[in-house]
Amino acid sequence: MLTAGSWGTVFAKVLADAGARVDLVARDPEVVRSINNRHVNPRYLPSVQLPDRIRARSDPGGALAGAELVVLAVPSQALRSVLSRWVPRIAPDAIYVSLMKGVEAGSRLRMSQVIAEVAGVTPDRIAVVSGPNLAHEIAAEHPAATVVASTSARTAEVVQAACWTPYFRPYTNHDVTGCELGGAVKNVIALAAGMLEGMGFGTNSLASLITRGLAETARLGIALGAEPMTFAGLAGLGDLVATCGSPLSRNRTFGEKLGRGLSLEQVEAEQRQVAEGVRSCRPLLAMADQFGVSMPITQQVERVLYEGLPPLEAVKDLMSREPGPEYRPHR
Amino acid sequence: MLTAGSWGTVFAKVLADAGARVDLVARDPEVVRSINNRHVNPRYLPSVQLPDRIRARSDPGGALAGAELVVLAVPSQALRSVLSRWVPRIAPDAIYVSLMKGVEAGSRLRMSQVIAEVAGVTPDRIAVVSGPNLAHEIAAEHPAATVVASTSARTAEVVQAACWTPYFRPYTNHDVTGCELGGAVKNVIALAAGMLEGMGFGTNSLASLITRGLAETARLGIALGAEPMTFAGLAGLGDLVATCGSPLSRNRTFGEKLGRGLSLEQVEAEQRQVAEGVRSCRPLLAMADQFGVSMPITQQVERVLYEGLPPLEAVKDLMSREPGPEYRPHR
Repeated sequence: MLTAGSWGTVFAKVLADAGARVDLVARDPEVVRSINNRHVNPRYLPSVQLPDRIRARSDPGGALAGAELVVLAVPSQALRSVLSRWVPRIAPDAIYVSLMKGVEAGSRLRMSQVIAEVAGVTPDRIAVVSGPNLAHEIAAEHPAATVVASTSARTAEVVQAACWTPYFRPYTNHDVTGCELGGAVKNVIALAAGMLEGMGFGTNSLASLITRGLAETARLGIALGAEPMTFAGLAGLGDLVATCGSPLSRNRTFGEKLGRGLSLEQVEAEQRQVAEGVRSCRPLLAMADQFGVSMPITQQVERVLYEGLPPLEAVKDLMSREPGPEYRPHR
Repeated sequence: MLTAGSWGTVFAKVLADAGARVDLVARDPEVVRSINNRHVNPRYLPSVQLPDRIRARSDPGGALAGAELVVLAVPSQALRSVLSRWVPRIAPDAIYVSLMKGVEAGSRLRMSQVIAEVAGVTPDRIAVVSGPNLAHEIAAEHPAATVVASTSARTAEVVQAACWTPYFRPYTNHDVTGCELGGAVKNVIALAAGMLEGMGFGTNSLASLITRGLAETARLGIALGAEPMTFAGLAGLGDLVATCGSPLSRNRTFGEKLGRGLSLEQVEAEQRQVAEGVRSCRPLLAMADQFGVSMPITQQVERVLYEGLPPLEAVKDLMSREPGPEYRPHR
């Protein structure tokens, strides 16, 4: 059971290829018809033939009661309202799977925390899937690895088994906080990566941004109780490298337009899908403030997005601080 | 004082832009003439105007006696013979700077260790410069960061001051072993990245390779006494991301041709400059064996290079192992 955006549709294909029957919820009746009759999602994946085992419906309806896994792939800021409507019909022993990478504005909750709150379930019933998983490549069955994180090893293994195919390789991890933060901050760093691209900077600059961006992600994560190793893994480094390196990433594309000189309003008017980093930036900074963590890149992105700082000034600011030791020895 | 390959020439420009007078050694008399008369290295950097403060010579000769920094940028396997010839004329208080990223075949020594042995100096007189530093981008003065590593904080700071310019930002680090290993293994992982590219794989695969490649680099490094943090930094992650991501990287280009089906001999006949990873692969594996460290990617690259394993088989091998937990919790 999941929703029919691009990653939701591709993950439905992964689940179906791994053997499951999948119900996919799409609001647009045309999309529902096309998936059921022609096995194609014309809106997000027009060139990919979906397995027969995927059935689309415009309302989750009765299907929710029988779903063993409820997979959620809606925009982060929409999760609370969508899930509130579904919860009364979800089976009490269902496992919730989040494919989402964001932080709720206002509450500053990660997606698994919103699920726990809205569905009233304990963390062992929730899993998070995150990794270097550009949707169109997985749709083409290019080999990819991912992380399935849950505080419950059993829940992680159930979801791992449900999505393990010859082209999709899920590792389990117990660090839900680290995996979710890796994904959320990544979208902000990808905005910065796009800005560099839009201003014509090259690979050295991008590699430095990725390195320092991962460092600030890990700093925040560790302050929140995440494991340092998670950030060196697929849901940290892996996802960050894939998103910052791909011209097809939504957040990078968004940043690229900012780097070319467009304003937040202008870019938002042009893009059809949500760039999660734009919404998560401020709640992440608020968390960093709360825990006394320095996040200079996220800070500069926020200033470009919301305070009209020219991207070139943001880069100059980051480059002009006096370089000291790379890190403090901790032996 | 340094040699006029592409990175050597660009680093000479950085030193000169930071205020030094630089002697550059080039074997080809045509290159020497062109640098002195037209301030251009026609062989490696034809489009870049070099500062007047760079003087070229075909033999280091008397210039060595007065050099405060002796910067070495020759192919790793040539360092021992080049330096042996120079050593008698080098001032006793000179600082040696290595720009090289390799391991000597046979001895399995890192470049700083070869310098210490051949020049008969203690480690505090040696510094290593390593980071996401694609030469052509630094030549164009795109902003880049790097690491200057030395066991001596003073030596690291001297070299940092000597190469700090508005476009080149050097951080100091005390972990020479980690910085050198990061650079050496990176070249092997870049061969694998090129193979993926040559076979038509996408960004998810590349990001997974970078993630797992950095993990095996860190495993070897930690066994040799390096600091884990170095691998998350510019000389680890940063350099790896830049090299694997750039179509202009020599090792990646080499791997790409292997991925398209050419043999080692065919690719070597085509490429003019040395791909360090090809030579460092076996000594690195020998070190891994000695310390009981698993390096599955390096192992597969060795098999493709020297045992005729088709690259696609190497990928299948890596993907078909059963996925377990991403890492073992260590709390």
